[in-house]
Amino acid sequence: MKALAVDLGGSHGTCGVVEDSRLLAHEPVDANGAKSLRAVLPEIIKSSRKLLAQMNLTADDCAGLAMGLPAIVDARTGRVLSTRTKYEDANDVDLTSWCRTELNLSFRLENDARMALLGECYGGAAAGFSDVVMMTLGTGIGGTTMIEGKLLRGKHSQAGCLGGHLPVLFTGRACICGAIGCAEAEAAGWSLPLVAREWEGMASSVLAGRDPLNFQQLFGAADEGDAIACEIRDRCLEIWGVAALSLVHAYDPEILVVGGGVMQSAHAILPAIQKYLDEHAWTDWGKVQVKAAKLGNNAALLGAIPLLIENF
Amino acid sequence: MKALAVDLGGSHGTCGVVEDSRLLAHEPVDANGAKSLRAVLPEIIKSSRKLLAQMNLTADDCAGLAMGLPAIVDARTGRVLSTRTKYEDANDVDLTSWCRTELNLSFRLENDARMALLGECYGGAAAGFSDVVMMTLGTGIGGTTMIEGKLLRGKHSQAGCLGGHLPVLFTGRACICGAIGCAEAEAAGWSLPLVAREWEGMASSVLAGRDPLNFQQLFGAADEGDAIACEIRDRCLEIWGVAALSLVHAYDPEILVVGGGVMQSAHAILPAIQKYLDEHAWTDWGKVQVKAAKLGNNAALLGAIPLLIENF
Repeated sequence: MKALAVDLGGSHGTCGVVEDSRLLAHEPVDANGAKSLRAVLPEIIKSSRKLLAQMNLTADDCAGLAMGLPAIVDARTGRVLSTRTKYEDANDVDLTSWCRTELNLSFRLENDARMALLGECYGGAAAGFSDVVMMTLGTGIGGTTMIEGKLLRGKHSQAGCLGGHLPVLFTGRACICGAIGCAEAEAAGWSLPLVAREWEGMASSVLAGRDPLNFQQLFGAADEGDAIACEIRDRCLEIWGVAALSLVHAYDPEILVVGGGVMQSAHAILPAIQKYLDEHAWTDWGKVQVKAAKLGNNAALLGAIPLLIENF
Repeated sequence: MKALAVDLGGSHGTCGVVEDSRLLAHEPVDANGAKSLRAVLPEIIKSSRKLLAQMNLTADDCAGLAMGLPAIVDARTGRVLSTRTKYEDANDVDLTSWCRTELNLSFRLENDARMALLGECYGGAAAGFSDVVMMTLGTGIGGTTMIEGKLLRGKHSQAGCLGGHLPVLFTGRACICGAIGCAEAEAAGWSLPLVAREWEGMASSVLAGRDPLNFQQLFGAADEGDAIACEIRDRCLEIWGVAALSLVHAYDPEILVVGGGVMQSAHAILPAIQKYLDEHAWTDWGKVQVKAAKLGNNAALLGAIPLLIENF
């Protein structure tokens, strides 16, 4: 089975053609800084048509189009329910009609992080497991959940997909979600510079003046022994461990899949999270396996087929 | 439909006869300080027989016996999986056989807090709702979850029932569960004295020397304007708000039912939790209703019928 897959997660967009658990071809979608979803839709059509033409396919060869968005969405109706900072016009866009009109294809919509979890379960690190939490460490922190083989969605479609927004430090920073001290507000790409700016002794670090600081710089300086970089890195690792524990206590998974942009430093991150869980999680049944995501940036695209064939 | 119901939650035990959502009669079960479940089983039989005799019933008039325990249990098999500090022999007890042998009744087992949620859904504060979180504030903090009308149980039966064990302060106190800074380790009956002992300025408070401090004393002194009591009370209220937010973000309920021993101060607690959620929870769909539990200490007993008739 083939399908069109669109991932508008995070800061970039990608359109792909997938066949089962393989990505046959993909194209970037120009979403650069787009606040408006409507402005991106013609770009998606352009990329889709280009891809199909390259492969001598037509839309008719596809079972549908599946799209992931960094938003709370109702997969059952294909509507966007809530966004933060991006695609704020999305609630008013009828994507199902758009897809039918432009491509004559059926349409499915899901939160981008949930789609990535579907991808990892379908043909990635979580293949063969029924109870999975995926944590995505990047600009934000994603945390999504599959229980007994089904995505956890809940009453208003926001169960099991706000894993970065469980507070870990109630005396901490304001989060973009409205809460205080979420894991994302303490140790994600957007909050790291805020943490670093206030860090005591920063002036003595090689990181001084690197503003906005990113994780690559942080882990690089820590690997070279910079004391302040080590302190900040260790705090991030601890917070990711705590966030993982919170998700384990909340959802009771067999495995925890960790992905996201920060995973270029997987050698430091995975053992730290595994150690935190082994030492602190209440799992008398055994140990949660911490595994690296396998599909990288393609995970959400590879969630297209399981999303399109899901029986709601 | 009638049933026998047993609640061994927290520090006391009760045995009751229920009919649908009514508690017809009940008896205390002598579980005073019992570390051993085996030692309590004869007491349960004694109380059950006494109750049945009083009502001119026999065990045959009951559809079964449902028991709630403060432990992680597998309701599907009737086995205890994990305990902390109480009933540590419970993993080895075959309760299904015990119930069949002693009373010739079918048996169902559930975590006591999950049973209380079932009770509140069946005939209490959550009647008519399908997506509910119940938070129980007492010696410990319970947090249990119903999604789409079904208890959330997960792979190892511990999803949706460790709501007091989501960390809210990762730099905080060690919890009895093994984690650090759980809501329960920061603001529950057992941890309150630890918090109070270290509180700056405690010597100037009317609470000085009240050790172990309990919530009734704390709320009483705060109501009388003691400054230190107000500080500690406000921190507890904030932590319960954060814990509630974590549960809302994790499970996406329509309503949050709050119960437990501390609810004699419901006038202070419910508005504080509601305000915290209204100000900080990411619920663009509307507002989570915070409601007081209705069934008090009878909630778990009244979960017996829905547990016995549940289709696993």
